[in-house]
Amino acid sequence: MFVLVNLKTYPCDPVEVAQAAKEVSEESGVRIGVAAQDADLARVAETGVETWAQHVDPIEYGSNTGHTLAETVAEAGAEGTLINHSENRLKLADIDGSVQAAERADLETCVCANNPAQIGAVTALGPDSVAVEPPELIGGDVSVATGDPDIVTDAVEAAEAVDEDVEVYCGAGISTGDDVESAGELGATGVLLASGVAKADDPRAALEDLVEPLA
Amino acid sequence: MFVLVNLKTYPCDPVEVAQAAKEVSEESGVRIGVAAQDADLARVAETGVETWAQHVDPIEYGSNTGHTLAETVAEAGAEGTLINHSENRLKLADIDGSVQAAERADLETCVCANNPAQIGAVTALGPDSVAVEPPELIGGDVSVATGDPDIVTDAVEAAEAVDEDVEVYCGAGISTGDDVESAGELGATGVLLASGVAKADDPRAALEDLVEPLA
Amino acid sequence: MFVLVNLKTYPCDPVEVAQAAKEVSEESGVRIGVAAQDADLARVAETGVETWAQHVDPIEYGSNTGHTLAETVAEAGAEGTLINHSENRLKLADIDGSVQAAERADLETCVCANNPAQIGAVTALGPDSVAVEPPELIGGDVSVATGDPDIVTDAVEAAEAVDEDVEVYCGAGISTGDDVESAGELGATGVLLASGVAKADDPRAALEDLVEPLA
Amino acid sequence: MFVLVNLKTYPCDPVEVAQAAKEVSEESGVRIGVAAQDADLARVAETGVETWAQHVDPIEYGSNTGHTLAETVAEAGAEGTLINHSENRLKLADIDGSVQAAERADLETCVCANNPAQIGAVTALGPDSVAVEPPELIGGDVSVATGDPDIVTDAVEAAEAVDEDVEVYCGAGISTGDDVESAGELGATGVLLASGVAKADDPRAALEDLVEPLA
Repeated sequence: MFVLVNLKTYPCDPVEVAQAAKEVSEESGVRIGVAAQDADLARVAETGVETWAQHVDPIEYGSNTGHTLAETVAEAGAEGTLINHSENRLKLADIDGSVQAAERADLETCVCANNPAQIGAVTALGPDSVAVEPPELIGGDVSVATGDPDIVTDAVEAAEAVDEDVEVYCGAGISTGDDVESAGELGATGVLLASGVAKADDPRAALEDLVEPLA
Repeated sequence: MFVLVNLKTYPCDPVEVAQAAKEVSEESGVRIGVAAQDADLARVAETGVETWAQHVDPIEYGSNTGHTLAETVAEAGAEGTLINHSENRLKLADIDGSVQAAERADLETCVCANNPAQIGAVTALGPDSVAVEPPELIGGDVSVATGDPDIVTDAVEAAEAVDEDVEVYCGAGISTGDDVESAGELGATGVLLASGVAKADDPRAALEDLVEPLA
Repeated sequence: MFVLVNLKTYPCDPVEVAQAAKEVSEESGVRIGVAAQDADLARVAETGVETWAQHVDPIEYGSNTGHTLAETVAEAGAEGTLINHSENRLKLADIDGSVQAAERADLETCVCANNPAQIGAVTALGPDSVAVEPPELIGGDVSVATGDPDIVTDAVEAAEAVDEDVEVYCGAGISTGDDVESAGELGATGVLLASGVAKADDPRAALEDLVEPLA
Repeated sequence: MFVLVNLKTYPCDPVEVAQAAKEVSEESGVRIGVAAQDADLARVAETGVETWAQHVDPIEYGSNTGHTLAETVAEAGAEGTLINHSENRLKLADIDGSVQAAERADLETCVCANNPAQIGAVTALGPDSVAVEPPELIGGDVSVATGDPDIVTDAVEAAEAVDEDVEVYCGAGISTGDDVESAGELGATGVLLASGVAKADDPRAALEDLVEPLA
C-alpha cells in the first residue's frame, strides 16, 4: 500500500511533514510519499522522504515561462508526479504529453480522474498508476472507501480492462487507518490524502494512525 | 463508409455545400454528413442533409452564457456532434461531460484525438465513434491514410482493445476518393474532411470524386 | 437606458421572449435587446428584436472548429455581442481579439468584468460599452444597484478615467423597474439581466415592469 | 534601467546565471534580476541576486494542487513576479487576482501584454510595472526597440494615460547593450530578455555587454 500525502498549497510546514513521513515510513515499513509545491521540492527532498511533484506540464526545455518542466522537478529531488489532479484538470492531449514528459525525466506518474470511465481513459495513456477521486467527496469527512465503495471497485475494473499493469489508487476523504484498510480491500494499492495529514495538529500522529493497520 | 464534411469557419456557403452533400449522398448511397457552425445549423438542416454540430459543451440548461447546449443544437436540427476536435481540445473531464450531454440530447458522438493512445483513452468514455487526426497532417496535402497509415491501423486496434462497438474514423489531409478508399482498407469506417470540400471551387464535384470509389 | 436580456442556456422559448421584447420596446420607446444562443440567433432576429450574440471568439475565417465567428453571427442577424461574460471569462489577449473581431463584423460590443479595476482595464481595449457584474450577486435576489451601489459608481468612474466615450452598463440581480431606475441614477446607461425575464412565467409582463419607470 | 533576465525552462545552469547577474549588477550599479523556475528559486536566491518568479496563480493558501502560491515563492526568496507572460496568458480576472496575490505576499509585480491597448488595460489593474512584448518579435533577432519602436512609445503613452506611477518595460529580441539603450530612449525604464543571456555561451559576458551603455 502506497500512501501519498498531497500538501497542496496548505499553510503547513512541508519539511516537518516530510520528516514525519520519512520516519513513519521507516518505522512501519509502509511506503509514504509527499507531494510538495515546486518551490518546496528541494528542501522536502533533502529530508530523504519519497518526494513527488503535484503537476508537470507537457513541455520540453525551451521557451515556457511559468510552467513546470519535468526535468527541473526531477533535478530538485522529485521521484514522481501527480497529473490531472481535480484541482488542475488538463486537456486530454496535455495529460498524454505530461505523462510522456514525466517518463522522459524518470518520474513515476499517477494520473487522477473523477470516475471509472475516466480512469479507463487515462489508463490507456500508459501511466504507472491512476487515482480515482470523486469530486463530491474531496475535502469532506466521508472516505471514498466507505462513502462510495463501488467507485473504487469499478475504477479497479475499468483500469484492469485496459491495462493490468497500471496500479489503481483512490482518494477523497481518507483520513484514518480504517479508510486506508478499506481502500485496500476494495482493490486499491494506494491512497491519496491531503488535509488529514497536512492540516493535522500533529502530522506524525496522523501518519502513524494511517499506517497502523498496514504495519 | 461515413463521410463527414467539417465546414469549420470557412468562408463557404454552408447551404450550397449541404445541398450538394444531400444530393450526392442520395445518388451514391454513401452516408454524408455536414458539420456546421452553430448559427448555421438550422438552415443547413433544412436542406435535409445529415447535420452535425462541431462541438457541444459539458453543460445542462442553466446559466451558461456563450456556450453550446446539446439540446439547443439538436433542436436546430443537428443529429450528431464532434467533440474534442484538434482545434477545440477539451479537458478529459469535459470530454466525458460533453459525451454525456450529447447522448442526453440524442446526438451521435464522434470524439477526436491525436494518436492511438489518446484514441484508446476516448474510446473508454463510450462515444459512438472516435476519429484519429494526426496534428502534423491536418490541413496538408498528404492524406493520413497514405502519409501515416500505421496511425490508422494502430488507432483501430487501440479502440478495439477497449470497446469493439466504437467506430473508428480518420482525418487529416483527405481530399480524394483514393484517400477515402485507403482509409477504409486500413480499418476506418468513416473519414473527416474539411478544406477538400469546403474550399473547393465546386463542392459538388469534390464530393462526387470522394464517394466515387464507394458507390 | 438599454435593457439587454441574456437568455443564457435557459429552457425558455427564445422566440416568445424576443417577440415580447420587440413589442414592449416599441410600446415603451425603451431600447431592449435579446442575447441568444448561436443556434437560436436567426429565429430570434426574425422577430425584429435587437439581437445580440452571447460571445464571439478572437478568430477570422479559417480553421476554427467549434468556435464562434463574428461574421457568422452577424449574418444570422446579431447586431451586438457580449464578450468576457462572467460565465465565459477570456484571456486578456482574447478579449482584445474578440473586440476587434466583433468590430470587423460591425457588431456592437459590450465587455463584461467583475469589478471597477477590471472595468477600467477592459475600457482601455476600446469596446462600445462595458458591463460590471459582481460575481457574488449574479443570479441572486439582490440587485447590484441596491446591494452594492458603490461598485456601479466606481465602475462608471473607472471607465470615464480611461475613455469617456465608452458606455457603462451594470448587471447582477436586476429584476424590477426599480432596479433599472436605481442603476440609471448611479450613472449606468444600461442593464444586463437574465433570469428575471427568461425564467419569468410571463416574460412580457416582466419586461413591462422593467421598463415602466423609463417609459 | 532594470534588466530582468527570464530563464524560462531553458537548459542553462540557473545558479551560474544568477551569480553572474549578481556580480555584474554590483560592478555596474545596474539593477539586474533573474526570473527562475519555481523549483530553482531557492538556490537562485541564495546567490544574493534579485530573484523573480515567472508566474503566480490567483489563489490563497488552501486546496490548489499544482499551482503557484505567491507566499511560497516569496518564502523561497522571490522578490517579484512576472504575470501574464506571453507564454502564460491569463484570463483578465486572473491577472487581477494574481496581482492581488503577489501584493499580498510583498512581491513586486510586472504584468506583460502584447500591445499598447492591452498595456493600458493591465495598467488599470494597479501593478508596479507592465511590459510590452510584441509576440511576433519574441525569440527573434530583431529587438522591439529597433524593429517596432512605435510600440514602445505607444505603450508608454497608454500606461501613462491610465496611471503615471506604473513603470513600463519592454521585451522581445533584446540582446545587446544598444538594444537596452534604445529601449530607454523610447521611454522604457526596464527590459525583459531571455535567450540573449540564458542561452549565451558566456552569460557573464552577455550581461556585461548589456549593461555597458548604462554603467
